[in-house]
Amino acid sequence: MNNIFIIGVGLIGGSFALDIKKLYPECTIYGIDNNDAHLDEAVQLKVIDRKANFDDLDKAEVVIVAIPVDASLGVLPKVLDAVSDSTIVFDVGSTKEDICNEVKNHPKRRNYLAVHPIAGTEHSGPKAAIYNLYTNKTNIICEVEETAFKLQEKALKLFSDLGMRIRYMNPKAHDKHIAYVSHLSHISAFMLGKTVIDKERNERDIFDMAGSGFASTVRLAKSSPAMWTPIFKQNKANVIETLDEYISNLKHFKQLMEDDDFEAVYNEMEQTNYIKDILNGIQ
Amino acid sequence: MNNIFIIGVGLIGGSFALDIKKLYPECTIYGIDNNDAHLDEAVQLKVIDRKANFDDLDKAEVVIVAIPVDASLGVLPKVLDAVSDSTIVFDVGSTKEDICNEVKNHPKRRNYLAVHPIAGTEHSGPKAAIYNLYTNKTNIICEVEETAFKLQEKALKLFSDLGMRIRYMNPKAHDKHIAYVSHLSHISAFMLGKTVIDKERNERDIFDMAGSGFASTVRLAKSSPAMWTPIFKQNKANVIETLDEYISNLKHFKQLMEDDDFEAVYNEMEQTNYIKDILNGIQ
Repeated sequence: MNNIFIIGVGLIGGSFALDIKKLYPECTIYGIDNNDAHLDEAVQLKVIDRKANFDDLDKAEVVIVAIPVDASLGVLPKVLDAVSDSTIVFDVGSTKEDICNEVKNHPKRRNYLAVHPIAGTEHSGPKAAIYNLYTNKTNIICEVEETAFKLQEKALKLFSDLGMRIRYMNPKAHDKHIAYVSHLSHISAFMLGKTVIDKERNERDIFDMAGSGFASTVRLAKSSPAMWTPIFKQNKANVIETLDEYISNLKHFKQLMEDDDFEAVYNEMEQTNYIKDILNGIQ
Repeated sequence: MNNIFIIGVGLIGGSFALDIKKLYPECTIYGIDNNDAHLDEAVQLKVIDRKANFDDLDKAEVVIVAIPVDASLGVLPKVLDAVSDSTIVFDVGSTKEDICNEVKNHPKRRNYLAVHPIAGTEHSGPKAAIYNLYTNKTNIICEVEETAFKLQEKALKLFSDLGMRIRYMNPKAHDKHIAYVSHLSHISAFMLGKTVIDKERNERDIFDMAGSGFASTVRLAKSSPAMWTPIFKQNKANVIETLDEYISNLKHFKQLMEDDDFEAVYNEMEQTNYIKDILNGIQ
């Protein structure tokens, strides 16, 4: 690995930069970002080696696009225009259908790999970049067959060195399923936070009563609106479907309480306890 | 401290037992539980020193009632009947109004202190008992003025030794506020878990895509239905109020998405980001 370009030097891009530099100390990590303060911060924190811009992309070996998913739609074609035939470019966004459609007919489509690493924290910006964010995490790759074989190989070697496990999916299935296990969790947390904050405006001291359970459930409400708004926009239909089901389940639970059917309330929870076994495989 | 009785040797009672024994190694910790296997396990794990029963309560200096809140309503009066005039008895349940009403006119009302330590994990049973569960946690005390002064003092000394900070509230306000910051979080997590599990029945591999964000948001869905059903039952009116507000917020968010008003979606999240500052004080 030689010249690695990170477009978007925040949590996701910055964490790739840190681990790649550790794996291949001889490589140079270039950062591109429309926020110049973030670029300076990334250099200062040694997240990247140098600032760069789109004109430098012709010397890139790997380009990682780690910006909000709406911005990626405009940026990715420009990146593909600028890179050499032997460059592998991948984005890491949380939606895959729109971006795959966007570059479907691009002359350099075979230089692009659609990737979604299931990793992150609720923090953002260059200072949020951490080592080992991707170790033992799932990395979903979409439309792998559309990428040039040698470039697939290069990307897979990198993901393997980073300690990630690979799952292949089509973009449509990816966007549908990720709505359940990721996008809905964020809305659930944001709206829980909102409900309690609204209450607190009138009733002081409520947060003095909050414990680690509340903190855990609401944690994702710290996430970046700039990152999440475009995700919800791009995955609108699927996210609305998950919200319909979630709201329906909450209403049903409320109805059981109103009917004083606490045996059914017990069963609802007991049947969901099975989540324990599932989470053991995640945490 | 001499003879400490723990009624209910699970996560909450067991964790009190461990820390109390560590603070006062000379004391004897007695356990009472209607599950004999749990009692044996608690002895084996050295969570308690000895098994006991209600006939032994006359020698108790402190009695901690740590059982589901519906069971407490029946057990607490019997405990008060059995203890000496100098015994302090407290329960640690997540609802306070019903229990305070239950013992309102009990001849030994002044031996009882209504307590709710804001501490716990999603695990249960004696093996879930851990050291330092209560360190730096909030302990809410209700109707403190109804407890004999010397016994208040004894309990407060114990809580202070355990490293807890005290907040005084009336039972009605306690139950109303705790519905927001604790009870609603549990339902939110349980129903999120249910929504995703239901989906997974038809669409395999969904959990392969779940990351730490989902795990955090759904963590409380591992909690014990036997503990939580009676809480929801006792706090029915308040919990239904929180559910109404939560469902209304989710519907509003969904409506904004349907209307393609993603500026408002952004603002919803941005205004809730303020939860960061609040959570800094909790975690």
